[in-house]
Amino acid sequence: MGRYIKKRQKTLGQVPGTLVHIGEKKIEKTKITVIDYNEKDYSEKKDVSIEECRSYVRTQTVTWINIDGIHEADIIEIIGEQFGIHPLLLEDIMNTEQRPKMEDFEGQIFTVLKMLTYNEEAKRIESEQVSLVVGSNFVISFQEREGDVFDSIRERIKTSKGRIRKMGADYLAYSLIDAIVDQYFIILENFGEKIEALEEALIEYPTHKTSAKIHNLKRELTFLRRSVWPIRELINSLERGESKLIKKTTLPFLRDVYDHTINIIDTVEAFRDTISSMLDIYLTQVSNRMNETMKVLTVIATIFIPLTFIAGIYGMNFQFMPELGWKWAYPTVWGVIVAVGIAMVFFFKRKKWL
Amino acid sequence: MGRYIKKRQKTLGQVPGTLVHIGEKKIEKTKITVIDYNEKDYSEKKDVSIEECRSYVRTQTVTWINIDGIHEADIIEIIGEQFGIHPLLLEDIMNTEQRPKMEDFEGQIFTVLKMLTYNEEAKRIESEQVSLVVGSNFVISFQEREGDVFDSIRERIKTSKGRIRKMGADYLAYSLIDAIVDQYFIILENFGEKIEALEEALIEYPTHKTSAKIHNLKRELTFLRRSVWPIRELINSLERGESKLIKKTTLPFLRDVYDHTINIIDTVEAFRDTISSMLDIYLTQVSNRMNETMKVLTVIATIFIPLTFIAGIYGMNFQFMPELGWKWAYPTVWGVIVAVGIAMVFFFKRKKWL
Amino acid sequence: MGRYIKKRQKTLGQVPGTLVHIGEKKIEKTKITVIDYNEKDYSEKKDVSIEECRSYVRTQTVTWINIDGIHEADIIEIIGEQFGIHPLLLEDIMNTEQRPKMEDFEGQIFTVLKMLTYNEEAKRIESEQVSLVVGSNFVISFQEREGDVFDSIRERIKTSKGRIRKMGADYLAYSLIDAIVDQYFIILENFGEKIEALEEALIEYPTHKTSAKIHNLKRELTFLRRSVWPIRELINSLERGESKLIKKTTLPFLRDVYDHTINIIDTVEAFRDTISSMLDIYLTQVSNRMNETMKVLTVIATIFIPLTFIAGIYGMNFQFMPELGWKWAYPTVWGVIVAVGIAMVFFFKRKKWL
Amino acid sequence: MGRYIKKRQKTLGQVPGTLVHIGEKKIEKTKITVIDYNEKDYSEKKDVSIEECRSYVRTQTVTWINIDGIHEADIIEIIGEQFGIHPLLLEDIMNTEQRPKMEDFEGQIFTVLKMLTYNEEAKRIESEQVSLVVGSNFVISFQEREGDVFDSIRERIKTSKGRIRKMGADYLAYSLIDAIVDQYFIILENFGEKIEALEEALIEYPTHKTSAKIHNLKRELTFLRRSVWPIRELINSLERGESKLIKKTTLPFLRDVYDHTINIIDTVEAFRDTISSMLDIYLTQVSNRMNETMKVLTVIATIFIPLTFIAGIYGMNFQFMPELGWKWAYPTVWGVIVAVGIAMVFFFKRKKWL
Amino acid sequence: MGRYIKKRQKTLGQVPGTLVHIGEKKIEKTKITVIDYNEKDYSEKKDVSIEECRSYVRTQTVTWINIDGIHEADIIEIIGEQFGIHPLLLEDIMNTEQRPKMEDFEGQIFTVLKMLTYNEEAKRIESEQVSLVVGSNFVISFQEREGDVFDSIRERIKTSKGRIRKMGADYLAYSLIDAIVDQYFIILENFGEKIEALEEALIEYPTHKTSAKIHNLKRELTFLRRSVWPIRELINSLERGESKLIKKTTLPFLRDVYDHTINIIDTVEAFRDTISSMLDIYLTQVSNRMNETMKVLTVIATIFIPLTFIAGIYGMNFQFMPELGWKWAYPTVWGVIVAVGIAMVFFFKRKKWL
Repeated sequence: MGRYIKKRQKTLGQVPGTLVHIGEKKIEKTKITVIDYNEKDYSEKKDVSIEECRSYVRTQTVTWINIDGIHEADIIEIIGEQFGIHPLLLEDIMNTEQRPKMEDFEGQIFTVLKMLTYNEEAKRIESEQVSLVVGSNFVISFQEREGDVFDSIRERIKTSKGRIRKMGADYLAYSLIDAIVDQYFIILENFGEKIEALEEALIEYPTHKTSAKIHNLKRELTFLRRSVWPIRELINSLERGESKLIKKTTLPFLRDVYDHTINIIDTVEAFRDTISSMLDIYLTQVSNRMNETMKVLTVIATIFIPLTFIAGIYGMNFQFMPELGWKWAYPTVWGVIVAVGIAMVFFFKRKKWL
Repeated sequence: MGRYIKKRQKTLGQVPGTLVHIGEKKIEKTKITVIDYNEKDYSEKKDVSIEECRSYVRTQTVTWINIDGIHEADIIEIIGEQFGIHPLLLEDIMNTEQRPKMEDFEGQIFTVLKMLTYNEEAKRIESEQVSLVVGSNFVISFQEREGDVFDSIRERIKTSKGRIRKMGADYLAYSLIDAIVDQYFIILENFGEKIEALEEALIEYPTHKTSAKIHNLKRELTFLRRSVWPIRELINSLERGESKLIKKTTLPFLRDVYDHTINIIDTVEAFRDTISSMLDIYLTQVSNRMNETMKVLTVIATIFIPLTFIAGIYGMNFQFMPELGWKWAYPTVWGVIVAVGIAMVFFFKRKKWL
Repeated sequence: MGRYIKKRQKTLGQVPGTLVHIGEKKIEKTKITVIDYNEKDYSEKKDVSIEECRSYVRTQTVTWINIDGIHEADIIEIIGEQFGIHPLLLEDIMNTEQRPKMEDFEGQIFTVLKMLTYNEEAKRIESEQVSLVVGSNFVISFQEREGDVFDSIRERIKTSKGRIRKMGADYLAYSLIDAIVDQYFIILENFGEKIEALEEALIEYPTHKTSAKIHNLKRELTFLRRSVWPIRELINSLERGESKLIKKTTLPFLRDVYDHTINIIDTVEAFRDTISSMLDIYLTQVSNRMNETMKVLTVIATIFIPLTFIAGIYGMNFQFMPELGWKWAYPTVWGVIVAVGIAMVFFFKRKKWL
Repeated sequence: MGRYIKKRQKTLGQVPGTLVHIGEKKIEKTKITVIDYNEKDYSEKKDVSIEECRSYVRTQTVTWINIDGIHEADIIEIIGEQFGIHPLLLEDIMNTEQRPKMEDFEGQIFTVLKMLTYNEEAKRIESEQVSLVVGSNFVISFQEREGDVFDSIRERIKTSKGRIRKMGADYLAYSLIDAIVDQYFIILENFGEKIEALEEALIEYPTHKTSAKIHNLKRELTFLRRSVWPIRELINSLERGESKLIKKTTLPFLRDVYDHTINIIDTVEAFRDTISSMLDIYLTQVSNRMNETMKVLTVIATIFIPLTFIAGIYGMNFQFMPELGWKWAYPTVWGVIVAVGIAMVFFFKRKKWL
Repeated sequence: MGRYIKKRQKTLGQVPGTLVHIGEKKIEKTKITVIDYNEKDYSEKKDVSIEECRSYVRTQTVTWINIDGIHEADIIEIIGEQFGIHPLLLEDIMNTEQRPKMEDFEGQIFTVLKMLTYNEEAKRIESEQVSLVVGSNFVISFQEREGDVFDSIRERIKTSKGRIRKMGADYLAYSLIDAIVDQYFIILENFGEKIEALEEALIEYPTHKTSAKIHNLKRELTFLRRSVWPIRELINSLERGESKLIKKTTLPFLRDVYDHTINIIDTVEAFRDTISSMLDIYLTQVSNRMNETMKVLTVIATIFIPLTFIAGIYGMNFQFMPELGWKWAYPTVWGVIVAVGIAMVFFFKRKKWL
């Protein structure tokens, strides 16, 4: 899902399901955090070992296992074995070029999403892949590195704010997806401000840089669009309620996220329209200015070239040029020059060039 | 649904269903008005308290509760509780960025629409969100501020004009939607006149301002389009008659509004086509004019540059230039100049530049 | 369905089903003509009163009631009452902005179509709305004014030519629709000739007017397209044979008209393609010509500007310019000038500018 | 199906099913040829009378009746009567503007196709309409004139090559359609060569003619596309096997022709893409060349205009110009001129204009 | 599937199912290799005769018959007879212009795919057609020449790596398809690098070559797209699990390849978008540079043309020009010249041309 596809050669010719990390390594060591809760109890444990994880799942409580770091194939493999995740899905988890998708696989829901942030310095959207495996009473989330948009969810679980402690693993999964989707609004807001600023610049005096900025926005928007479109389908699949893992009470919430993605897609499409209009405006402006430059050149050249010619005539050194000796010749020439000049100006006025 | 997305950060990380007003505050205090009627009786009461509202709904009469102001979360929350509206819908009511939509939710129909007006000064369409909650014998309408397009409906209820007093809450909801959709025709009419004026300007002498106006129209049309397209789907959902709240006698009326939205969409698309043609015409005109400018420059320069060269030759001060002493040299040079000039003019005539 | 939407304000806030004429009044007084026939008998009566109409319908014969003039709301209302036409359909009949459509409404088929003619003077397609109400043994046709494309049908009924007298009201309705659709071929033929003429003009010497003509054709084609596309759907609905009013023997004929509309749409789309290609060709031609102008300017200027400079040098009045006194200086300068000129010409030949 | 629609006025107002020839008359007299065969026997008879035809059809053998010439309405009518063909289909047979289509009509399959050839001189595709009526043991083919692409089929029937003599009328119909579709590949091959040649011309030195050729190809491709697209649907209808006339053993062959049409459509679309890219390249080239022309003009003018000014200064005739008397003035001016020239060249080098 | 369609004339008029090789002959003699395996045993035999092949298929082991060379019609025919492949499919195998497709044909699955490699020298994608015939316990693969992307699969079978030895012929077919699809990622990666390099070139100083490279990439991408799109449909047909030959355990793997093709199509579409943006940027850059060139020309010409005129005036040789005798005339003229020059510069500063 990068702007350009990344090195894949290492996976070529491998047995399908071979675990190879595709993408950039963003963390040194894999870190596992477990949050375990039900309506009454709550516990959080950091740097859990893989073996411990399994024990949590046997209980009736909801368990959220968050794994930061997806580049260590052996760890991913052990987790896969413990929770019965299909090797092809593990392969998808480790491949950061995976397209957002949802699969309902033997009693587990598997989803891949993109967590996006806008890097102001590089002027590009940065993307981190988040995979979720949802079982009947657990959610495993795989992230590329530490730091995410889930802190408010952790807070809500801890302080038992809202209904999250009363609902099951499906609601937790919904909350995570919702947090990721909500983040897209921030990016769109940022884009909206940029577009507004550019529109003003376009009206005033657009330069070469303005067009570069517009093209950059367009590129980032294309990137954003590729992350967002598949999410719509993903959530739609969840919301259709075909999986037994999704309880009926969670459906309205999924419909709500679905509405959000529609809203985001709508805005992205509107931005694309706006940006393409802006490029049109830019080209029109450039064309208009060129036209104005041409007019100035034409007016000046057209006025002075004939006048210079007249002056040139009387700069000739022929011995027999009767005019040269006439007394009123010089003022007459000036008169002609002024007359021609005025005629020209009138001509241009009529042509609306002045 | 703004041109650019508005500040959303305050909702980030909130429990879903948390009531936060997104948008501009357009009224100071929330005002509730209740109109209660059946075929025989009619009563209207302004500045009703929230508690009173509930009592109206228990009766068999049709009750229209109109709420101006959606920024006070506590009021919205109490209304939600009293009428059993899902918190996610309340969230939608308070979010003025909501896309037009329709939801059939546990015995209530919920719709969001955009009431549009064209602000001549700012040269932009202004939008006010109207949400309708339709129950078996009541309609609650939420508006951002006082003033709306429903006055004729109020009049018809009061004077018992037409069939409105004989029909139920579904017909009232239809009437409100119809009034909103009819308003779009006014905006389109306004656009039509603007386009017609611009087309004339294009034929005469299009300037930089013409193109700016076309681009402005295009932007507003894109905005209008985004408000109208979802309404088609919305009314289609209603008209398919799946909800028990919609009686069979109301269906032909909904089909009629549906026809209107199709007509509006059709016109919007035709306007878009026209505007895009107008931009093409504008660019062609600019290109044509540039071409004409170039031709004038070329003709003048091409005629006088060689002539000036000839004059320059005999302006040289060499001691041994036999021509300078010839008697007929000067008239000859004039002859050459005139001949070259005429030849040039013929050349340009053949090239169709003159 | 006008190019721009017409004044609608008078209908705003009206009770739905209120009869208001939208459009231009094209006839002074409404005229009703009745043609009544079966296989054996035939009668035609002009200027029938509304009351008389009803009596015709009670018989077993096929009755065609043609109404010229749709601006008198009271007349339309009485007809509506007599034949049991829904008020919303009456509203559609009086609204000349109605989009072509078909509705199957309680035992009656209602269709709206556009009868088109090309006005050579105004260089635009003119449209007249025709609404048909088809019952089991009658067809009511509403037109905006006298004069239509149905004369050949009247003739066929009168002289019992073809099968029309042997078939029912559904075949009569088919014949009317067929006559309207056939008229579109005439318009397309006219367009085809215009396009052909423009293509030739494009190859020879396209001017500003050529592009204006192309743009005008494009606009009219867009208008035509909006009238034709909905007709396809309309006839498709009829042809699917869901209405009991359409007998099986009429279906092949409807399929035939359907084929015609497909053919028309196909041609319209092909014309659009052609016209958009023509605009491309026009712009390419303008661009090519500009290029040629530039080349002439460049060649002339580039040859003479350096030569003029040389002449300028020896026009200087310094006292100590040794060349001025040399005997062969003047011919040498001429030699240099000729050499530079020839070199330039060679340079341009290599650049393929000459 | 012409480039522009042909005269239709003569059919206007006619009873539907009236036989009128639309198109160009391409043969003097209608000619009927009958080929009659089964696995064992074979007979071919030219210039058969219409009455004889009927007798062939009563036998169990497969009969192929080929009719060259479709402009004689009386002959077509008699054939129609003898074989029970619906008048509307006869009308379609005589209308050479008919779009390719397939109809399953009371135990007969009716198809219209276009036989295409590329006319190198007129540089346009020429089209001949072929209609097929397929019964249980006969195929009637209608062509506009003598000469077709079916000779190899005649040969295969005569010499009993392949399976054709063992199969029924449906296989014969398939063979005819296959021969027509195969012909399209020849046209595409021809187009492919033209495109390749044009691409090379584009890289070398594209002229005005190159662009005219590209536009011509584009137009012909649009025409081809209109003939091919409906054929896909046509064969798909046949291949879905809904008609009892099509035996199961013939289905794989129809699927094969279907594949061919998909392949042709695919190629046509790819050619359209290529041609539109070529137009882009052409415009880029023109733009690039214009730019180069401008640069040469700018460089020459910018270098010599200031130098000419300097020369002009010392060509002035003031009595008190001290420089004129200085000894080193003339060489100094030359120095300045050379210095300015060199500075200019450096400036242009930095601007990458040289 | 070539860029342009290849010579087809030799197949014209042939009996359908006639085996004719269409394409380039890439190998001298057909070579058959057989790999035969089950969970326990493994054998590989090169240069097998056609007759031997048949014997392998009777056993319970999985047999992979690989045939390099598809130009020898007699060999293909014998294979077809031995394995009961329909003549039309044999025709497809020998026609290298075949579009990728899948057919389920009397207990055999037939697929055609394109194996792609990027030829750096010719700067074009090269394509080799691979056809697979899958039976209950065998896979026959037809290739145009020796050398393919299947070596890793051969290795996995030999060393019994992964699950391939435990699965049936359907899994083998999946593995072959997967290997071909994986190869596309390599090509996309290559394209990605090219695009990135071009983007940098675009920002720095785009030349004529940059645009040629972009257009070349676009053409190759169009070619790639035509190979990839049908594969999506192909795998989708397989994955829907309608064929009995595909076992349930193989379905997740097919879904995985399906995901890969979606990913590839997604990337191809994104590349197309990027390339079309790059062409826009290129044109904008050219337009900007032209504008700059024009500005320099205009500034220089506009400053010096009037000044040269002034100098020209006082170069005239009239006897009665009082200024010529004035003492301060010359410095005054210089003053005027400097003043005009400065005024011009200010004018241009205000116009933002300097």
